[in-house]
Parts: sequence; C-alpha cells; structure tokens
Amino acid sequence: MIRIGIIGYGYWGPNLVRNFVDIDGATVVSISDRDQSALKRAQAAHPMIRTTPNDGDVILSPGIDAVAIATPVSTHYELAKRALENGKHVFVEKPFTTSVQHAEDLIELADKMNLKIMVDHTFLFTGAVKKIKQLIDEKVLGRLFYFDSIRINLGLLQKDSNVVWDLAPHDLSIMDYLISSNPIAIAATGTAHINGFEDVAYVTIFYPDNLIAHMSINWLSPVKIRMTMIGGQKKMLVWNDLVADEKLKVYDRGVEIESKEESYHARINYRSGDVWVPRLEQVEALKTEAHYFVDCIYNNLTAINDGVAGLRVVRMIEAIIASLKTGGCVICMEETHAALRSVSLPKAERGG
Amino acid sequence: MIRIGIIGYGYWGPNLVRNFVDIDGATVVSISDRDQSALKRAQAAHPMIRTTPNDGDVILSPGIDAVAIATPVSTHYELAKRALENGKHVFVEKPFTTSVQHAEDLIELADKMNLKIMVDHTFLFTGAVKKIKQLIDEKVLGRLFYFDSIRINLGLLQKDSNVVWDLAPHDLSIMDYLISSNPIAIAATGTAHINGFEDVAYVTIFYPDNLIAHMSINWLSPVKIRMTMIGGQKKMLVWNDLVADEKLKVYDRGVEIESKEESYHARINYRSGDVWVPRLEQVEALKTEAHYFVDCIYNNLTAINDGVAGLRVVRMIEAIIASLKTGGCVICMEETHAALRSVSLPKAERGG
Amino acid sequence: MIRIGIIGYGYWGPNLVRNFVDIDGATVVSISDRDQSALKRAQAAHPMIRTTPNDGDVILSPGIDAVAIATPVSTHYELAKRALENGKHVFVEKPFTTSVQHAEDLIELADKMNLKIMVDHTFLFTGAVKKIKQLIDEKVLGRLFYFDSIRINLGLLQKDSNVVWDLAPHDLSIMDYLISSNPIAIAATGTAHINGFEDVAYVTIFYPDNLIAHMSINWLSPVKIRMTMIGGQKKMLVWNDLVADEKLKVYDRGVEIESKEESYHARINYRSGDVWVPRLEQVEALKTEAHYFVDCIYNNLTAINDGVAGLRVVRMIEAIIASLKTGGCVICMEETHAALRSVSLPKAERGG
Amino acid sequence: MIRIGIIGYGYWGPNLVRNFVDIDGATVVSISDRDQSALKRAQAAHPMIRTTPNDGDVILSPGIDAVAIATPVSTHYELAKRALENGKHVFVEKPFTTSVQHAEDLIELADKMNLKIMVDHTFLFTGAVKKIKQLIDEKVLGRLFYFDSIRINLGLLQKDSNVVWDLAPHDLSIMDYLISSNPIAIAATGTAHINGFEDVAYVTIFYPDNLIAHMSINWLSPVKIRMTMIGGQKKMLVWNDLVADEKLKVYDRGVEIESKEESYHARINYRSGDVWVPRLEQVEALKTEAHYFVDCIYNNLTAINDGVAGLRVVRMIEAIIASLKTGGCVICMEETHAALRSVSLPKAERGG
Repeated sequence: MIRIGIIGYGYWGPNLVRNFVDIDGATVVSISDRDQSALKRAQAAHPMIRTTPNDGDVILSPGIDAVAIATPVSTHYELAKRALENGKHVFVEKPFTTSVQHAEDLIELADKMNLKIMVDHTFLFTGAVKKIKQLIDEKVLGRLFYFDSIRINLGLLQKDSNVVWDLAPHDLSIMDYLISSNPIAIAATGTAHINGFEDVAYVTIFYPDNLIAHMSINWLSPVKIRMTMIGGQKKMLVWNDLVADEKLKVYDRGVEIESKEESYHARINYRSGDVWVPRLEQVEALKTEAHYFVDCIYNNLTAINDGVAGLRVVRMIEAIIASLKTGGCVICMEETHAALRSVSLPKAERGG
Repeated sequence: MIRIGIIGYGYWGPNLVRNFVDIDGATVVSISDRDQSALKRAQAAHPMIRTTPNDGDVILSPGIDAVAIATPVSTHYELAKRALENGKHVFVEKPFTTSVQHAEDLIELADKMNLKIMVDHTFLFTGAVKKIKQLIDEKVLGRLFYFDSIRINLGLLQKDSNVVWDLAPHDLSIMDYLISSNPIAIAATGTAHINGFEDVAYVTIFYPDNLIAHMSINWLSPVKIRMTMIGGQKKMLVWNDLVADEKLKVYDRGVEIESKEESYHARINYRSGDVWVPRLEQVEALKTEAHYFVDCIYNNLTAINDGVAGLRVVRMIEAIIASLKTGGCVICMEETHAALRSVSLPKAERGG
Repeated sequence: MIRIGIIGYGYWGPNLVRNFVDIDGATVVSISDRDQSALKRAQAAHPMIRTTPNDGDVILSPGIDAVAIATPVSTHYELAKRALENGKHVFVEKPFTTSVQHAEDLIELADKMNLKIMVDHTFLFTGAVKKIKQLIDEKVLGRLFYFDSIRINLGLLQKDSNVVWDLAPHDLSIMDYLISSNPIAIAATGTAHINGFEDVAYVTIFYPDNLIAHMSINWLSPVKIRMTMIGGQKKMLVWNDLVADEKLKVYDRGVEIESKEESYHARINYRSGDVWVPRLEQVEALKTEAHYFVDCIYNNLTAINDGVAGLRVVRMIEAIIASLKTGGCVICMEETHAALRSVSLPKAERGG
Repeated sequence: MIRIGIIGYGYWGPNLVRNFVDIDGATVVSISDRDQSALKRAQAAHPMIRTTPNDGDVILSPGIDAVAIATPVSTHYELAKRALENGKHVFVEKPFTTSVQHAEDLIELADKMNLKIMVDHTFLFTGAVKKIKQLIDEKVLGRLFYFDSIRINLGLLQKDSNVVWDLAPHDLSIMDYLISSNPIAIAATGTAHINGFEDVAYVTIFYPDNLIAHMSINWLSPVKIRMTMIGGQKKMLVWNDLVADEKLKVYDRGVEIESKEESYHARINYRSGDVWVPRLEQVEALKTEAHYFVDCIYNNLTAINDGVAGLRVVRMIEAIIASLKTGGCVICMEETHAALRSVSLPKAERGG
C-alpha cells in the first residue's frame, strides 16, 4: 500500500486527492496547505484524511511513501527536494520546475535515492492523445510534417507569470510525447498588454527532418480554442478538444510529388479521401495517471512522464523565455541536448 | 470613358473583364494572353472585345487609357513599367512586384507621369473588412492588442514559389489597411516538405505600442480555415470568412487592471458581455474596387490600395522571405521605413 | 427555517440535496430511498443528514415542513398525496403525475390544506429561458409565429415508458411558460423500434392566433441536439443549449407584406439585419429554483411552476399519448381547458 | 443526336440549357419564354440557339426530339401533354404536376406514345444521395427506423402557393428514392402567417415495418438548415448539405435489446463506435441527370426519376395538402396505392 501525502489543496489538489483516494494499492493519508480555508474544504470533503498547515508534517512523516505536490511552480523544487531527501517518491504538477538546473538536480537526486519522479502531464493519459500516439507509432500518419496547436481563451492572467508558463506546458508535454526526437531550435514572439507579462505568444519549435511545430497561446482571445493539427506524409489529423463528440478527425489527405527529382516539371498530386473519426477511450485521464504512478513505483518502471520528460519541457520553456526576452531570436537547443543526454542516459531513458 | 485593356486571361483575368465591363464610365476594349486556349475562352465569353496574343498590342495601343495586369507576379514589373511609360494607368494583381526596388521604381514612374497605380487588394472592398475598418476607426475596439490570422488549406502548391507569396499577401494587405502604422520588425519561420519551397510558415509582425500581428499560413492543412482575430482594449472580434452567415462577431470582452500601478496587488477584471454579429454589406468586392479604380482616375484620388500600399506589402514579404532564409531571425524594418517615407511622402501619402 | 425531507436518492435526488442544503432559510433533515446502496451514498456525502429506507419516516415526521420527491413518476401521486395530507409542502420532479386526474386531485388537496406544490421544471430557471421570457414579454420578438424544438440523442431507452414521457416534459414546460396561452389541439406521430415503446415522436401543438409549436424527440439519434427556434413577427431566435458560449442568438430577420390586403400583388419584403448574442445570467438553475420554492412558502406566492403548471404539462402529455395511440389523430384540447379553468381559477391562477 | 427544346428560361432554365448543351449525343436547338427579357438573356448567353416567345414553336417543331419544361408547376401538365402528343420526350421540373390525375394521364400518354418522361429530381444525382442509396442497398444501415429531414430558411414566400409545394418535393423525391416501399399514411400540420399560405409545415409519413419519416419545412426560419438523418438498426447517418466538406457522416451507433422477448428484464445495449465521413463523388448533379435522360431515351431505360416516380411524389403532396386542410388528420395512402399499382405495374415499374 503506497501511502500518499498531498501538498497543496488549491485548484488542482482536490482532483489529486479524489483520484488517489480511489485507487487500489494506494491511500491518501495526509493533506497540507498553508491556507486555512483550503484545509477546511479538505476536512469537509475528506473527514478521514489528516490535514495540516505545515508541509513538513507531510514531507517528514515516516508514514508516507509518496508526496504529490500541487503548489505554485516556484515552490516545486524546494518541496520535491526535501521530499526526495526524506525518501519519498514525488508526483509533481507541471511545469516540473522553473529552471533546467533545478530539474536536473531533482532527477539526479531521485536517481541516487532510487525514487520515482512523475510530472503531472495529464493530457498524455487522455483518450485523444493515446489514440494520436498510436496513429503516429503505427505509421498511419507517415513521416510527420508539422505539429500546430492553438490554445487560446480569455484569462486567467497570472499576476507574476506570463502566458507561456501557464498554457504552453500542456502543448509542450503533448508534443514531446508524440514526437520522439529532440528539438533543434526554438523561436518565440509575444507581447504584454495588461500587466507587463506576455499575454500573447507564438512559439516555433524546429525538429530534425523539417518537422516544424508551432503553438499559438493567448490569454486575450474572446473565444476559447483548443485545437491541434498534425500533418503527416500519409494522413493528417485535427484534434478539437472542446467538442463533446468527434474530438479527433483523421483525414486521408495529402500531397505527393510524382517524380523523385524535385524539378519544376514534377507533377504534384493531391489526395482527398475519407475522413475517419475514431472512437476514443472514455477514461478520466488523471485517474489513469494516478494508477500509473502507483504502478511505476511497485514495478520500478520508467514513466513516460518521468522527471526527464518534465526536464525536456522545462528546457523548452527556458528557450522560449530566452527567445521572448531577445525579441524573437532563434535559440539553438543543441548544447542543451548534450547536457540532457548526459543526465538522462544512465538510467532514465525516454519512457514509452 | 476609361478604355481598359486586360493582360492575362488565366484564373483571375475573366473576373477582371466581367467586372470592368459592367461599370459606368469604363469599357474593356482589348484582352491579351499568350495562351491560345485562354484567348479562345475570352472570345467565346466576350465576342465584342478584341483579343490578341501580344501584350504589346494592349500596352502600345493609343485607344487604351488603363491596363489591368493579371499575369504571374514575376512579369508585373516589366508590364507595368511599359504601360506607365506609354501613358497608361495600371491596375495590377497582388502582390505588386517581386521586390521593393521594383515597386519603388514603378511608384516613382507613375508619379512622374501623373498616372495611377492600383494594386488589386480585393479584400479591402469586402463587407467584412469595411466593417472592421469602421470598428477600428471609430475606436469601438479601442487600442489594438493583436491581429491574428489563419489561412490554411490543402494546396495549391506552386512549382516555383512558396506559401508566403501565395497566401500572405491577402492577410498582409488587410492588416496593413486596418492598422494605420508601419511595422517595426518581422520574424518568420517555416519549412518545405514537398518540393523545396516552404509550404508551412508562421509570421510575426511587431508594430509600435506592443501591437503584435501573426499569420499562420499552410498549404498542407487537411482543413480549410480563413480566420482573423483582432483583440482590442475595449472589444475583440473574430472574422470567419468561410461561413455563409455571421462572418464577423464582435465580442464585448476584455481584461482590465484596476489600479494604475501594474503591481502584484492590482486586481484583474474580466468583462464578458454580449456578442454582436453586424450585418455586412452585400457587395461584390471586385466590382466595388473596379468602380473605385475608375473613380480614382477621374477624380485624381489617392487610392487606399495604391502603389505605396502595394509597396508596403512587398516590403513585408521581402522581410518575411529574408527571415525564413535565416531560419527565423528577426528582421528590423526601421531603415526600410525611412526609405518608404522618402518615396511616399511627397504625394502618395497613406490613402484612406 | 423550512425543514426539508428528500424522497428518492437516485439520479436527481443528490442534486436536490446539494442545492437545498445550501440555501438560507432551509435545511435538509432527512433522506429516504428504498435502495440500500443509494442510502449509503447519501450517508457518505451527507453524514449529518438522517437516512431511512422508509418514505413514511419522511412523510409522517412532525419535524419536516416540505417534501421533495425525486422518485419515478408512477409514484408521485401517492407520495405527494400522503405528504399533503400530512401537512407538508411538496416539491416534485417532472412530469408532475401520470394523469390529469391525479394532478387535479393534488392541486385541490393542496388548496384545501393551504400548502404549496412546486413541479421541478428546472429549465425555467436557466439564464437562457429567463432571457427568452423577457424578450417575449417585452415584445422584442413581436407576435409569435412558431415554437420549434429538437431534443434528440442516443438513449436512454426506458424499459416501461416511451420517449414522450422522458424528453417532452422539458420542452412542454418551457413552451408552456413562454407562451402565455392554452393550446387548442395536439397531434403526435411516432413509432417504436426496440422494445414496444415509442422511441421517435413528433408533436404539433396548435395555439390560438396561428401560433404553431412542434417538438421532435428521438432516443435513436446518432447525434445529440438541443435546439429551440422561436419565430416572431419582429425577430427570431435560436437557442442551442449544447454550446458552451453563445447559446442564444437573436436574429433581426423577418418577412413583411407591404399592403394590408393579402393579395397576389402585395409585395413581400425580407428583413435581414444584425444578430445579437445576449449575455446570459450564469446561475445554477436548480439552486435558483430551490430558493424560489422556499420563498414561495414563506411569502405565500403562486409559483410559475406550481401544480397548475405541472397539470398543464400533464394535460398535454395525455393528449400526445392519446394522439400516438390513434396513429396521429388530432386531439382537441378545448374541453380540457374548461376543466383546467374550473380547477385552477379559484386561487391558482397562472403564475408569472 | 437528341435535339432538345427548352421551355422556360427563368431561374432554372439557364441551368438546363448550360448542361444539355454540354452533352455528347444531345444538342439544344430552341428556347422559348413568354418574357422578352428572359429571351434576351438567353440570346446573349447562347447566340447559336434559336429563341422564341411562343412555346408552340418548340412543341410543334419537327426538328425537336425532346422538350425540357422549366415553367411554373401549374403549366406542366398542359405543356407536357402537348409535347407528348407531338411525339416529344419530356424532361420536366419537379413537382411533376399539380394533381395525381394529371400525372397519371401523362404517364398513360407517354406509355401509349412510347415516349420517356423524366422528372427533374436533381438531388438523386448528387454524390451524397448516391452514397446514401448505396449504404442502404448494401445493408450497411440495416433495417431502416426513421428518415428525418429539416429544410428551413428565410423565404422565398411564393405568392400563390405554400411551403409544401416549394420545399417538400426535394425531400419527398429523395426519400421515395431511398426507401423502396410505398407509404401507408401521411399526416401534416402547418400554419400560415404572412399571406394565407402555409409557411411552416411538419409532415409525417408512415411506412411499413414501423419506418417513420418526418419533414420539417419552414420559410420563416432565421437560419438555413438542410439536414437529413437516417437511423437504421446497424448504423445511422447525418447528411448536412450546407457544409463544404464532410457533408455525410456515418455513425457506428445503435441500440440493441439482448433477449428476444421484449420484456421488462431485457437488457438494452448501446453501441457507440467510430464515425466515418465517406468521400463523395464530386459531380454536377444536373449534368449527370442530363446525360442520364439522353441515355434513357437511346437505350429505352426506365429512369429512377421517371413519370411514375414523379407521380409518387405528387401523390404524397396531395395527401399532405389534404391533411393540412383538415387541420392535421391522417390521410391513408392505401387506396391510392392500389391505383398507383394499376397505373404503374404494366410497364413502368419502380426504376432503380
């Protein structure tokens, strides 16, 4: 039985408690939050679970095997570090940390202590992403041409952070999972209109083999859009996460060049066939992920969303922020890759 | 009576003939095309109009006052130059020219000859763009925050050109018209997958006052999207050009910061009111534009889509291409502005 | 303090408890359900509320002022009757009863006992229906021409009842509230394909002044649609309840005949103006309704959804069922109106 | 070479000319219209075709083999009759005639003269209807449960006719083609709001085996909808004719009852699988139909849209009108079937 302590009972913490409570092989024994009203809500909803204003009560408790951290990102590093040092596995909200350095430290520490880190990249466990991953892995789409996502809505502006930290981790973690290679370079543009932090941003991520990824993120959009398009040589897909049904459409469409020489005289052919809307697995992603966390601990698995996956996302965010700071300059990711490999290769290879 | 000669009867030429034929104060007297089958189609559709395989017959004819050029962009400069030299007003397809230098030459020549150039930025004459222009000019949207457009579809790949030359002029000309200032810098990313020319591209245009514009253009999209979002301090709008009705939606939505100091403690307020779908003028844009061309000649008006407007678009395309070539570097537009001003200020101020 | 007992803790009961618990001036003191597992769920969610398998414990308790009945419709009459006889106000799920006779009996009994009956026509308390009611009452739509609703989805087939009893009460109660007059006649067609009960049905309701209402209800539709169109002489509206935003659109569209004589030579004019998407009040309808129930008791108000409103809906269902049984014959509602008036006029006039 | 004369050059006539002109094995030799301005338009568009204000010039001409009639429905009978009497094949707009009697007369006359009648049920030749027909014939949908169509928009009110004559023939001809059996009974409700003719109507058509069809037609709808849903035991489909792509969606959804006895204890199972959007043939329906007309004449084929098909549609319209006149009474189609059989069976069996 994995005994879990939850740190942070704000927006997301209640979901963690509700899902971890409900899993065979795990139990939630403690919840901490510095805010008294949050603790009261926790008590009312879960009268059998111990609550405390002191995160040390969770981190230091000998009766706890794993800690789930649902606090602001700026606190992740210190909390996760203390938890790992005290022999606890760590489940932590995304983004993993505020810097590559912190992420690397935590991965190293977890390796040394033989403990698991899982970063809560919830979307990887949705029916839509699972199906897309399958379509890519089974070569249904063919060689990938582009990954294009739009994640825009009105608010919620953060008072101390920009739209990239808030919205991009979703798409970055999904993209990183679906595309099994490392980015070459990143360029980002954006501006701030309200409180000095970027509220509109556009990010291009260059991958090998002319695969280009792009994210449009915006806190000032009058409409809410969650759309991802992936174009491949054989098929293309559109994932619209906001519709109740028919979220994922696979298009038998493409372009082919007839002669091998890419000459002026080559004939370009368009293919426009059926559209297919696969039925998606109806699962609560967070429940599946909670199960998986417990499973990874019991069976010593390398999670698809382990610390190294979290690090890859943080590394991209760092590059995006750096690009934004320079007004859009292209940030080369090569050296960071070398560093990434040296950290990750010994034991924590890419999961999946 | 303005006597018009049409050069080029391919895809767009027939539309020019049909619309210019139908206008009071103008007549189409001649059509040239090097392709015999195009000429045959012209004869069948317009038995009363002279046809010729030789563009010189149009350009040199003393019986022609104005020339409308609907040929590939690479030929625009030479044809327009000869037409101007022979005392003809010029109506030319977009993009105006393949280089800033060419555009500047033509503007100078037209000025010297006291002739008009009009670049066919057809979209400026649609009910949707007219209404958006009005909403901006009447300060309904308030200070502009962003201009974000998506223009994607499957094909048609050009064999000798990239997606920017094909699709971006639409959005650039619309954006240039709506935003009455000059861009500071441009960054563009993109890749080629089929025949060596970019088929996917993302363009950011930085304007003064933190106004950011972005275009997503793609020849490999399985779905066709024509969407422009404009966010202002007071209101925001979404223009979806592909729906039959309700193309333009104006959202009474926004974000305000309560205290003037942009401090951590400032309260951020969201406003979410009614949505308004204004009825749009039902006009054939090209017919309105053809009228306007004739009107500009008769009354010596500076058109909103004159050569200088065409030049501004070409200048942005040049910067986009330059940025693409460098893999996404930011191209500063400042010097080009100085140049632009020196060319345009004497007589050809921004129309509108 | 109104002390409320809940009978029935299946699908809807938990919502009643959650909302009544949260209201000033009311408290939930008891929950009954014959099913032990339902009672267990009730205890877990509301440890402070008494639970019992015996509805008599609720109905007979001197410590209870009002009973909320969320059991199958076939039990409504007997439970409500016993509750009224024991001096309890009654809040009862829709449809009110299985027969007009039963509804009339309960209304008479409540009148005699000076107690309130409220039928849970929840939709009347949504932002959309409130706004539509206002648009009609303020003559924005003008004289009503038609009310047309579509309520279709896949399942859930009931084992002992048809699609009319399941889906029509929603639209009938909304329609009855919005249209302040009584229907003249009803015709319904439908068929059964699965288990002998109609799973597809079409209902026309004729109102005075050529106002026609129609409902399309279907348990075998592959897609889920919840759409209501209301056409008036001045304006028309479409309410799409399944979209997150922009549920209600008001169209400045219409048809007018120029001369008063409806002659062959009269000119017909179409008007097609702006569309307006009013912002809707964001309320939880059931919470508002629960408040209203308590308010009606305290202040002796006649509810817009009182027993007589419930009776009007049951009367229409009876006519629909009668029409279905005869294979689509038109059922005249005139006599039933006379009866309705004699029951309702003394004290329980139309609310609103 | 079939020499065709066109009678009527109003709204639809030009389409007939344009399509018949373009077909191998046929030629258009003459156009008549009583309206001089229509004749002028015909001359301008087709200078090589003879025009005349006198339909007799077409009907009596020995140089004409077939007549295409695109005049108001009230004139179809007399024109078709004269054409048949003069030995011409007849292609006639829908609806075929204004009465069953007239349709039967024309069929009998054509039989006697050994001439073809084709009624212009254009929709049968669209990619969507062809695909649906194939899905039904190949038993992909399984036993049919319902056919439900919505055809609504604002206008165009006719000054001398109701919405049924204008809009229903489309859906009736499609339905009649797809469902290879004869209706048992028809019930229709509707009202008139503007000029004394019904502008809103709802039609139910009962078929054998509990197959129910329904049409919602409306001239006063603020929105334009063209949607047909067909539910079968195995699969269901939705055809939305107004979208550019993905017009037809086939849903692998259904309901099954587990035990054969339709008992209370039978378990009901829902199936919800993939959605499939078949690519539709991209054809101009009218061109295909024009070819087919010529083909039927050359090869003495019985068309799927022959006079008997036209008669079946007129028979249903007559029943709808009769039902509307009685305020919604169910009209039994049995006797009319007997009559239909006696007319049609000898030679003109159901085409297809």
